[in-house]
Amino acid sequence: MFKSTIGPSAAAPVYLRPETAQGQFLDFKKLLDYNQGSMPFASASIGKCYRNEISPRTGLLRVREFLLAEIEHYVDPEKKQHPRFPEVRDIVLPLLDKETQLSGKTVPQTISIGQAVESRIIDNETLGYFLGRIVLFLVRLGVDRSKVRFRQHLANEMAHYACDCWDAELLTSYGWVECVGCADRSAYDLTVHSRYTGASLTVKEALPEPVKVEEWQAALDKKLTGLRFKKDAKVVQAAVERLDQPALEALAAELEQHGAVALETPALADGTTRVELPKELLSISKTTRMQTTREYTPNVIEPSFGIGRILYCLLEQVYWHRPNDAARAVLSLPLSVAPNKVLIVPLSSNPQLNPIAHALSARLRRLGIANVIDASSASIGRRYARNDELGTPLGVTVDFDTLKDGSVTLRERDSMVQVRGSEDEVVMAIKGLVEGTETWEQVTARMEIFGGQGEDQ
Amino acid sequence: MFKSTIGPSAAAPVYLRPETAQGQFLDFKKLLDYNQGSMPFASASIGKCYRNEISPRTGLLRVREFLLAEIEHYVDPEKKQHPRFPEVRDIVLPLLDKETQLSGKTVPQTISIGQAVESRIIDNETLGYFLGRIVLFLVRLGVDRSKVRFRQHLANEMAHYACDCWDAELLTSYGWVECVGCADRSAYDLTVHSRYTGASLTVKEALPEPVKVEEWQAALDKKLTGLRFKKDAKVVQAAVERLDQPALEALAAELEQHGAVALETPALADGTTRVELPKELLSISKTTRMQTTREYTPNVIEPSFGIGRILYCLLEQVYWHRPNDAARAVLSLPLSVAPNKVLIVPLSSNPQLNPIAHALSARLRRLGIANVIDASSASIGRRYARNDELGTPLGVTVDFDTLKDGSVTLRERDSMVQVRGSEDEVVMAIKGLVEGTETWEQVTARMEIFGGQGEDQ
Repeated sequence: MFKSTIGPSAAAPVYLRPETAQGQFLDFKKLLDYNQGSMPFASASIGKCYRNEISPRTGLLRVREFLLAEIEHYVDPEKKQHPRFPEVRDIVLPLLDKETQLSGKTVPQTISIGQAVESRIIDNETLGYFLGRIVLFLVRLGVDRSKVRFRQHLANEMAHYACDCWDAELLTSYGWVECVGCADRSAYDLTVHSRYTGASLTVKEALPEPVKVEEWQAALDKKLTGLRFKKDAKVVQAAVERLDQPALEALAAELEQHGAVALETPALADGTTRVELPKELLSISKTTRMQTTREYTPNVIEPSFGIGRILYCLLEQVYWHRPNDAARAVLSLPLSVAPNKVLIVPLSSNPQLNPIAHALSARLRRLGIANVIDASSASIGRRYARNDELGTPLGVTVDFDTLKDGSVTLRERDSMVQVRGSEDEVVMAIKGLVEGTETWEQVTARMEIFGGQGEDQ
Repeated sequence: MFKSTIGPSAAAPVYLRPETAQGQFLDFKKLLDYNQGSMPFASASIGKCYRNEISPRTGLLRVREFLLAEIEHYVDPEKKQHPRFPEVRDIVLPLLDKETQLSGKTVPQTISIGQAVESRIIDNETLGYFLGRIVLFLVRLGVDRSKVRFRQHLANEMAHYACDCWDAELLTSYGWVECVGCADRSAYDLTVHSRYTGASLTVKEALPEPVKVEEWQAALDKKLTGLRFKKDAKVVQAAVERLDQPALEALAAELEQHGAVALETPALADGTTRVELPKELLSISKTTRMQTTREYTPNVIEPSFGIGRILYCLLEQVYWHRPNDAARAVLSLPLSVAPNKVLIVPLSSNPQLNPIAHALSARLRRLGIANVIDASSASIGRRYARNDELGTPLGVTVDFDTLKDGSVTLRERDSMVQVRGSEDEVVMAIKGLVEGTETWEQVTARMEIFGGQGEDQ
């Protein structure tokens, strides 16, 4: 980790966070409150994380500062079903599970998430649900579905806290790159935070029916304990309270048999760490009580997205060039990801075209559609080509017919097909494409295909 | 600043950035290329910044880690007009300018941006344009316009690089809090980066007409210089090339008069820092050339948003309570800012209501509208009240009439007014409100007002 110091003195060390997860666990109690104590619920965080890698390598894949997006989904360990599981049940994933890897194979089995959970290849429904959501997310970003696989961690590489863990890996020129992790971290984090802070990080749930509970209970005679141990009385009391059920049961038998028990304690005033408690001071008995609530530490399912890695792999996967022309590169970013959705090009430097381009730009901006005008003196083919390489999905040309009848052309980056229509028609088509309510196929089916100046050839 | 070290050794110090600006200046050359060398253009960056404040104070206003959003708008120092200035010209701002402050007054003058630029209270149009955009942005976030003022930096508090600087200040219980800075940083940053890196950070623009330029030029006889200075020849050559026009003019006169000149140099091989150059080695003459381009270092206008401070002030300004009931607090976040847009409440725990609430939630989610279901056992009035306090602007109730006719109610947080309509009508109203295409007044005018169970009283 990166270490620094905080405040005026060098005595207070601080570390840059290596993941966002722990900050979320610290908020668990508050988040549970906000959720009215009901389960399951999730928190999410996105932000820079820092790891002082000794030797950063493989280009941009192993870096010291990176953007991490993590979801912590808290779930009852006895109810790892997920209500929206049916939405992902039939998604078929290439799973490189533990057994396949241990048998020395590298070919994943393709199997539906439903089958994988049923056969316990994936540990539980909630974990399966998130694997499904991860692949849907990646494909929506533009990732090539045939270049995604899910690899299960082997027992010897899995973090000590995880009970199952899968990595979504994307295929690049570096090979398969781990981009999203999805771990069932069990109750590990909350348990450890609770142990070190003393704060209770559990969920209390009303039981449908009260349950009769038999348990051993220990009681110290306060007065006699005070007389006997003086200042150490509190330490002894605390040591008794920490005893669990098996310990109490054993001590009860010993007390019965010998009339006294020996008990380990933290260091007392005289330095000893052991006291003898006779039955005049200590009584242990079996009691019965009605339990109306159930208390448990939630398990955490954690999908963890390395945003930089995903973007790097995406850029590699969507970069290609036109057939027979290695110089004409195209970056096929989908509309949802491309920083600029629309390129606006005035056909020539004719001063009448520029105001139309700027008015159209302002109109798209008001609709929240990011766009850029390229009014440079390069040829229109050159301007399209360089914006293809920048990944701008749509292009609008303002030309001399625009001056006559107000019509403009709309061009799709990957196919280079153009349609022509009134500015209103084209703006509506762009809006539909950006919002995902219409496909390019639908646009070309209902609008006039434009043969035009053939500037793309 | 916070200091750390990078890599395996402690020898490489790094610092956490105290602002985002410098990272953007480092990219200037690339960004100018992306913009095809044309001016003006802007870059923007948002991210965490870190300052190791000795004593953080005033609650959340002075913190060591904060979110900063900065725009660097590069502009020709001779063309500080802005094409979109007319959009903000008539906006009236409360300006606490230098003169007012120096005269000991604290009451700002209210004046339109157009007048302020014309009378040079605000230095230039581009700076004025951004002041206008800043106030529009703040008001859109929900800031109370009567609690915003713009204060100009006095000469003695202005950073050495700035030629004019204004702070947007918001009124809170701490007094006026500086939330957005807007400085004209002149050419300072690019000039200094260029000086220390040796990289040229200038813009070259074709002149409309070539201009005849007369200038002094120095030439060293390479062969004789080599013979005379050996290994030092390059240092001498560089020293000659660094001479500016006034220096060349003076040396030309000296050379003419004495037949030789003395020239300061960096340390030579023998430790001396001065050479004598006779006219056999050095000639200086006046030449004429046609200049076709103009070269300049852009000025930078920098609006800089302290996101945490803006949010803190906003939360203070929109927090109030119902008349005569201090316990019923309301957080009047506008729809654009509220994390959840819609609260969905099933009227009772009747098991038929919950599936309808969940279906409605999924429908809104598909429209990209963040919503939350509160199906807890609290009374509906209690559930509305606590979501008013959380700032959720809209509430939909699913009740027993929903089971009969599919209608639901839609409630507006601040007025507590409810309308009733079919689920389709209500979803369309929500969509219009969220997208800003319809106001609540328009919704109440066209839909049936619902008197209902009066659960808000």
